[in-house]
Amino acid sequence: MELWLTEQQTDHVGLACRVKETLFTGKSPYQDIAVVDSAEFGRMLVLDGVFQTSVFDEFVYHEMIAHVPLLTHPNPRQVLVIGGGDGGTIREVVKHPAVVQAEMVEIDGLVVEVSKKYLPEISEALLQENPKVRLKIGDGIQHMKEAQNKYDVIIVDCSDPIGPGEGLFTPEFYQDVYKALKEDGLFVQQTESPFYHQPLLRRLFSDIRDLFPITRTYLASIPLYPGGLHCFTLGSKHYDPLQGEVPVLPFATRYYNRDIHRSCFALPTFIQDLLK
Amino acid sequence: MELWLTEQQTDHVGLACRVKETLFTGKSPYQDIAVVDSAEFGRMLVLDGVFQTSVFDEFVYHEMIAHVPLLTHPNPRQVLVIGGGDGGTIREVVKHPAVVQAEMVEIDGLVVEVSKKYLPEISEALLQENPKVRLKIGDGIQHMKEAQNKYDVIIVDCSDPIGPGEGLFTPEFYQDVYKALKEDGLFVQQTESPFYHQPLLRRLFSDIRDLFPITRTYLASIPLYPGGLHCFTLGSKHYDPLQGEVPVLPFATRYYNRDIHRSCFALPTFIQDLLK
Repeated sequence: MELWLTEQQTDHVGLACRVKETLFTGKSPYQDIAVVDSAEFGRMLVLDGVFQTSVFDEFVYHEMIAHVPLLTHPNPRQVLVIGGGDGGTIREVVKHPAVVQAEMVEIDGLVVEVSKKYLPEISEALLQENPKVRLKIGDGIQHMKEAQNKYDVIIVDCSDPIGPGEGLFTPEFYQDVYKALKEDGLFVQQTESPFYHQPLLRRLFSDIRDLFPITRTYLASIPLYPGGLHCFTLGSKHYDPLQGEVPVLPFATRYYNRDIHRSCFALPTFIQDLLK
Repeated sequence: MELWLTEQQTDHVGLACRVKETLFTGKSPYQDIAVVDSAEFGRMLVLDGVFQTSVFDEFVYHEMIAHVPLLTHPNPRQVLVIGGGDGGTIREVVKHPAVVQAEMVEIDGLVVEVSKKYLPEISEALLQENPKVRLKIGDGIQHMKEAQNKYDVIIVDCSDPIGPGEGLFTPEFYQDVYKALKEDGLFVQQTESPFYHQPLLRRLFSDIRDLFPITRTYLASIPLYPGGLHCFTLGSKHYDPLQGEVPVLPFATRYYNRDIHRSCFALPTFIQDLLK
């Protein structure tokens, strides 16, 4: 028997993956959670039927959501990750020597537990009980309301804007992010596919630009995600990723490098036009 | 009844597209040919079950295979396209004011006829009988053997290295390309997915580098193709796309632009390592 799991990427497109084994299925108060071992992508985390991350290509997303902002800020000591329950983002954050504390606020404790059990390569910073890491299971929106002038870098590593991630894509949330950042702080959020989610991307970019003097969208190629191209939008109070020296990375990477640090901000014309 | 057409992108991954209408199916001496109208990508050309191009995203591939080499060469007067039966590449080539003659050698006349009938947006340069265009239905490998010191730019717009395109991925073919180019000529070839076809890409890059003093791989994001990321490899006798002034484009584009002209050569670390 051949098992195929198909993710409905849009109403009219599906990505089908051959599955060798289903390792976990369960239900949290927030979502359906599954881990499957796929033939092409290795182990994959699936939330509400949406492919979240895979052992095959997770390095792209996690390196790009972490290293671009953390190397744009010259001294990121206090870092907050909202979401990111699989642990891949915090794994990259703690590699930066400047980071003193990396807080992580994930709403769904079961995602963390499942990731620690079935995706140890991704969740290693949570498994090792890294002293820089402070994990809180709770509501990122509420956490952000209570924080003030506290963080150098905030990373919003959320799922799609349907379900538990919805409130992380609003102007009210961005205002709280602004307030929670120090006066030279910056934040980044995954902002979906520039091919398939254009109205969303345009709205988010505009909402962030209304608050932050420096707003930039950058790209990364992720085979697992719709269209294979994903974008991230950065809002910064002071530092501009396109200004100054290109930073030197003090550890090995598989996707991000000094060339990518600048080139990921080079947008195809149709995306430039969308964000005008 | 809902119709879905699934392309087997690898042994273990499929891309499924909802199809509104099947417009053409037929068989040439070389391959099975179909044109379907898909809900997400619009009209698509399908050869031997492989999605070749779609109205939705064809601009990425065709702009990137044409404009990068044609704007690397300062005066591309004589241009040859091998393959490219849908006409999209030649449509972009003839936009360049310097181009005096654009020859196109496609082995499968039925692909050209079907594209002219069902994909007029893509095949417009063939429909209009553009005076710069000279179309020959024939074998690109044989054509290349007979040409000497003739072309400024050669574009190898071939299908996958299985089926009629196979002989376009060999050292013998590259030697003929070298010979067919003028002394400052350059060529480019589509070289598949850097995620899924790594041994092939490494071999092609190495074969091209054995002949050409300047060899560079560049990237473009194409949702229809496996992994959403496609690469092209350029072999050049004299001009280096990373040297000199970034050219100004004298017409409008939807993907390619001056930022992309350089940034498309910035390779993620895993691709840099692959091509070392």
